[in-house]
Amino acid sequence: MPNPTAAMIVIGDEILSGRTRDSNMHFLANELTRTGIDLREVRFIADDRDAIITAVNALRQGVDHVFTSGGIGPTHDDITAEAIAAAFGLPIGVRDDAREILAAHYARSGTELNEARLRMARIPEGATLIDNPISAAPGFTLGNVHVMAGVPNIFQAMVASILPQLTGGQPLLSQSLRIPRGEGEIADPLGDLAARYPDLSIGSYPFVSNGAYGANIVIRGSDTARVEAAMLELAGIFPDHLRDA
Amino acid sequence: MPNPTAAMIVIGDEILSGRTRDSNMHFLANELTRTGIDLREVRFIADDRDAIITAVNALRQGVDHVFTSGGIGPTHDDITAEAIAAAFGLPIGVRDDAREILAAHYARSGTELNEARLRMARIPEGATLIDNPISAAPGFTLGNVHVMAGVPNIFQAMVASILPQLTGGQPLLSQSLRIPRGEGEIADPLGDLAARYPDLSIGSYPFVSNGAYGANIVIRGSDTARVEAAMLELAGIFPDHLRDA
Repeated sequence: MPNPTAAMIVIGDEILSGRTRDSNMHFLANELTRTGIDLREVRFIADDRDAIITAVNALRQGVDHVFTSGGIGPTHDDITAEAIAAAFGLPIGVRDDAREILAAHYARSGTELNEARLRMARIPEGATLIDNPISAAPGFTLGNVHVMAGVPNIFQAMVASILPQLTGGQPLLSQSLRIPRGEGEIADPLGDLAARYPDLSIGSYPFVSNGAYGANIVIRGSDTARVEAAMLELAGIFPDHLRDA
Repeated sequence: MPNPTAAMIVIGDEILSGRTRDSNMHFLANELTRTGIDLREVRFIADDRDAIITAVNALRQGVDHVFTSGGIGPTHDDITAEAIAAAFGLPIGVRDDAREILAAHYARSGTELNEARLRMARIPEGATLIDNPISAAPGFTLGNVHVMAGVPNIFQAMVASILPQLTGGQPLLSQSLRIPRGEGEIADPLGDLAARYPDLSIGSYPFVSNGAYGANIVIRGSDTARVEAAMLELAGIFPDHLRDA
């Protein structure tokens, strides 16, 4: 059975302007690979209602899961929840269970649950809440779309909350070999190897180290024996390799 | 006149699997902001011919420039040039000017220009070469699509080669203020301020520092006087702010 598939949408002007460097995509990519879910595409878009609606509706049909990051806080530029509801054509409003979570959280710290904070209890109809152990305000899952915070430690905690519930496929195994030769020299034998192992993904990632060209060759697949067989052949073709790129 | 717009496509299985953390998007985002070109969307896709064709054709109509990163080396998984040609419905083949650049480069180092390396001289019909001062193999511009290498130092050198030729708009100025309060407390006055300055982009980026909540408020615009006026108001509303987030 093929692995489940996923896409991600990272929402935020601050990333497109270069002010902030995103770390959520790299985190999620690793978590999904470990779980056996194939990440097919990631889109970075602005804090823009139409852009969010377009991206969500373009991606949610084609994959098993869509993960979003960003735009669910209490300020005027936090428009993700509204836009997701609109993408599904569903109403959104303050929901009792989400309000209770916030009320309990702010009561503990003696902070007022004002109107701005209450915006974080706005949840589209029919959505399931995603637990936020860091700052209480929940994310939510609507259909196959998982809507999470952009702040990295909260995003990571939310991913930890939902990933165990998603059916993973077979984790992809990968092995790599560091070859101290230019890609131009490696390309032909590597292409032959890839043709003999069509069930594996064989990638070549060039680098320059101390002025010398080299490439990390990564072989990925779900069958350990096949990955090892291909890696053994590769090591034989390039006896000057260095294990473990 | 509004700023020119751009989109980026980052091509590579190794990024979607989490093996590699991309740095080209963050680099390009900063360069474009400095130049006055608005980056509207970034898509990360796999080394997959159809995915590349779909993304290029979806994005090149809607923005002034599309920048791609990755997949133009000599190995079997380098399929970007072919896919870009297919997206435009144009033929591709080894071009004399690109072959000469490679021949001269490899002659200097006494390396054979073999068939794999010659793949890097395959350029779609009608494209203009992008200079690669690091490892010679050129990128290319076809229509409004700029096709560049994925290796970060080569990508950066190629961006430096082409950016001066693109017409930039007015660079966006930004100022920021660090406010040691939770977003829930900031949200209402900030929303009012944003409503009074519809020509500016006002964003709120929360953080937790030593267990205390705070937010960096960033005000962006192309008119210095307006940005400064809004910043002055903001500082007045939150006298406990810290300058220069």
